[in-house]
Amino acid sequence: MSGSAQTPQPPYYAVIFTSQRTEGDNGYGKMADRMVELASRQKGFLGVESARDEQLGITVSYWDSLESIRAWKENAAHRTAQDRGKAEWYKSFALRVCKVERDDFFEI
Amino acid sequence: MSGSAQTPQPPYYAVIFTSQRTEGDNGYGKMADRMVELASRQKGFLGVESARDEQLGITVSYWDSLESIRAWKENAAHRTAQDRGKAEWYKSFALRVCKVERDDFFEI
Repeated sequence: MSGSAQTPQPPYYAVIFTSQRTEGDNGYGKMADRMVELASRQKGFLGVESARDEQLGITVSYWDSLESIRAWKENAAHRTAQDRGKAEWYKSFALRVCKVERDDFFEI
Repeated sequence: MSGSAQTPQPPYYAVIFTSQRTEGDNGYGKMADRMVELASRQKGFLGVESARDEQLGITVSYWDSLESIRAWKENAAHRTAQDRGKAEWYKSFALRVCKVERDDFFEI
């Protein structure tokens, strides 16, 4: 998860998750790593990009279809993480489901 | 730019820009601030979210239409910044234009 995701030709789907954390780790780091690992084994997963600074965290995951996004949303371990997120880890978040229509890459 | 963007009901558009920086600032910080300020005065601009850590930077800007995104892409000052980005500031980047179909917000 150290660079831009290697995604196929559009169209495909993106889930943009932006969040503001509560104070302290409270098991968040470990669960976040586990969720990335689990998501990456889901059907239809195409990649993930993540960055966090003091103000905001942004994680974008890429998927082949809305159906794959729905299946990941309903995954049991992920649901547990979602519940803990609302109860413990996040002050606020925004989640957006998007269809990627066009992309462009640059590399030196 | 300290939290999640306050966007209207979908559909609207998102530009996801992920980048890996070259070493040193080289005027990047000042230009980045200026571009956010300039973008926010463009027709059709809805908001922006940004996070950067040691590995990756992610900036997501939100727009009312593909036409507004195109106009911002062609903006003269922005084009100069795009050129300097490729020449000086970025090792690599990915840019994705998306249609936001659904969103969900949470706040304590």
